Amino acid sequence: MTDASGAQFALAVHGGAGALPRERLGPERERTMRAALADSLRAGGRVLAGDGSALDAVVAAVVVLEDHPAFNAGIGSVLNAAGDVEMDASLMDGRDARAGAVAGVRALANPIRAARALLEEGRHVLLIGAGAESWAASRGLERIAPGRLITAARRAQLDRAREGNRVSRDHDEEGRGTVGAVARDVRGHLAAATSTGGMTNKREGRVGDSGVIGAGTWADDATAAVSGTGHGEVYIRGAFAHSIHARCALAGSDLEAACAAALDRVAVLGGSGGVIAIGPSGPPVLAHDTPAMFRGEVGPDAAPRVAIFRDEPLSAP
Amino acid sequence: MTDASGAQFALAVHGGAGALPRERLGPERERTMRAALADSLRAGGRVLAGDGSALDAVVAAVVVLEDHPAFNAGIGSVLNAAGDVEMDASLMDGRDARAGAVAGVRALANPIRAARALLEEGRHVLLIGAGAESWAASRGLERIAPGRLITAARRAQLDRAREGNRVSRDHDEEGRGTVGAVARDVRGHLAAATSTGGMTNKREGRVGDSGVIGAGTWADDATAAVSGTGHGEVYIRGAFAHSIHARCALAGSDLEAACAAALDRVAVLGGSGGVIAIGPSGPPVLAHDTPAMFRGEVGPDAAPRVAIFRDEPLSAP
Repeated sequence: MTDASGAQFALAVHGGAGALPRERLGPERERTMRAALADSLRAGGRVLAGDGSALDAVVAAVVVLEDHPAFNAGIGSVLNAAGDVEMDASLMDGRDARAGAVAGVRALANPIRAARALLEEGRHVLLIGAGAESWAASRGLERIAPGRLITAARRAQLDRAREGNRVSRDHDEEGRGTVGAVARDVRGHLAAATSTGGMTNKREGRVGDSGVIGAGTWADDATAAVSGTGHGEVYIRGAFAHSIHARCALAGSDLEAACAAALDRVAVLGGSGGVIAIGPSGPPVLAHDTPAMFRGEVGPDAAPRVAIFRDEPLSAP
Repeated sequence: MTDASGAQFALAVHGGAGALPRERLGPERERTMRAALADSLRAGGRVLAGDGSALDAVVAAVVVLEDHPAFNAGIGSVLNAAGDVEMDASLMDGRDARAGAVAGVRALANPIRAARALLEEGRHVLLIGAGAESWAASRGLERIAPGRLITAARRAQLDRAREGNRVSRDHDEEGRGTVGAVARDVRGHLAAATSTGGMTNKREGRVGDSGVIGAGTWADDATAAVSGTGHGEVYIRGAFAHSIHARCALAGSDLEAACAAALDRVAVLGGSGGVIAIGPSGPPVLAHDTPAMFRGEVGPDAAPRVAIFRDEPLSAP
């Protein structure tokens, strides 16, 4: 499954990282989440197996997770302090550093599609709020009633957070979180995508790393495609995703060491989280310093492998 | 004017970079702009001379430029396609990587003050739109009628842009633009601040690099404080400000070479612009690949030096 460039395609996805204990998740939800990760990997893997682009693959994989109510992106996004959904998403193409991102959007079923349309248009990189929604509508993306994205589970989660006056990352409370994908296609091109509903009970207008190119998302064919998940504020303050690229490009670091160094920096700044990354060759890196990260990868054998807990090897879902 | 750490304080500011020809600016406006740059330098320089922090100094310097109607930030911000002001600002402290940023705000006279309040609160790094404004109000920042920031000159500029269906950087059209400041205080701490009204006739909700930590703004005591001004989309796609830090930290580059490399990357991506930066020692770097950049610096001699055009040495205003 390689072409003249000799690249072997691969895709990795994540569904958030956090402190989730296994007993809190429960066996039924665990099965649901593993199956959803596998579905996402199959969707992206099909694109790559059909000689599609890494960019198309990461969007296809993220759309599956946005459309699954168990993940904190698209439908099933967590609710802000006002009880509303506010989503961020970003996308970058390693071929040419084209990028698109939206932040604070409420009326779009798939924010990553809006980021994709922005990337394609090539005029603005980051659009926020109502302006992003009206632009997306002008590009043919359906405008939906924001209430359609709100699930009963998320309302209950917000109620618990309000009681405790907490702003919580999704995966600390419920074991689900930000979603993302990184891919390498048969031409050796890389791409990364990240999408999120952010933090439960967050202040209205808060944007985390998932909406920020360089923080939650980066892609450069020469080094890596990166999607992060963790304390968004700390990821921004560390320029997390770009720092992994920079360490590979400027310090000759290998990808695994670069990811570890970026997570170390997150810890120094008082945060935690995870990352998925893929380079010009070799398997994806899936790293986290949290007890759990929903994660998986797939290659030319079309057999998705997934994992949730720390030290758990990837395996068939 | 140094303390035990041996650091000599210094401050640099910019008021945007662009294609402005000297004859378009005219001698009277040229004097006005030079005087405003000097006022900004004096305001920040006073803070530093009084043993104040780099963070306080860059905020003081940027507030002067936000409050001056000739610059594209605060009052006098350019207008978006809907005829409204939408401003972005960001701020970073090199001591501890604390950061604050706002984007798409309309009802704040000094967006950099809101970024400062966010940085101090330490909870969220980036707030956008109405949520940012209501948060700022809750922190005691005055909420103003957005119309108060709109000048007749900006309305005329938007009309010209609409006629030509152009989205223009301010300084290409009128020779004014984004503002920013970088400083080193007597304790050797660094800070950077950037503030802008963005691009004339921009789509509603468009955010450029000035609202993005890592793109328009970065500060790390070990390497540099950086504020950029140029094609915001390209600056985001190059992680402009963070890339200068990374080149110093990981490749041992000196600051001037790192700034030049970042501007080279901007050019590769099809953009142009400028940067001001300051490191742990030595004079500030003020670099641009545009015909003009409003710029200046001041040190312990309390004598501001400013310049506008390419190859023009800094001199008394």
